[in-house]
Amino acid sequence: MARVVVDVMLKPEILDPQGQAVQRALPRLGFEGVSDVRQGKRFELEVDGPVDDAALARIHELAESFLANTVIEDYIVKVEEVAEAGK
Amino acid sequence: MARVVVDVMLKPEILDPQGQAVQRALPRLGFEGVSDVRQGKRFELEVDGPVDDAALARIHELAESFLANTVIEDYIVKVEEVAEAGK
Repeated sequence: MARVVVDVMLKPEILDPQGQAVQRALPRLGFEGVSDVRQGKRFELEVDGPVDDAALARIHELAESFLANTVIEDYIVKVEEVAEAGK
Repeated sequence: MARVVVDVMLKPEILDPQGQAVQRALPRLGFEGVSDVRQGKRFELEVDGPVDDAALARIHELAESFLANTVIEDYIVKVEEVAEAGK
């Protein structure tokens, strides 16, 4: 069992109203020194079996076709934990 | 300038309908072998100046009070890139 994380963020050139709303609120809440905030989605996938190249290719396909709207979003795939199953 | 990432995920014991919807759709889309999916939020904060302990403490406070609903969500703070300003 391994956990694969897919982070989906708006492309830099796309306006991020949610991130801007958070950023504008920060000074009112007493938080200075944060010049930009961008908000995106994080998917944690628990994958059966080893995360080999084939599994990673499949997850890239999944992210590209289903988790991210690649017209306006970028995504990054990261393997986080590999729980050593009994061999 | 440094980028600090705050990942906000539902606590494990909290039902995640969005994650479940994604997971149930995967076999129909031809993606097998993903036993669980959880969806959360990812915030990327561009922080002015060095991310020292004081800045990190402030960001933890910000995450605790504003970015996460700590009744149902957990959060993790990670420093990603530290762009070395000219000394």
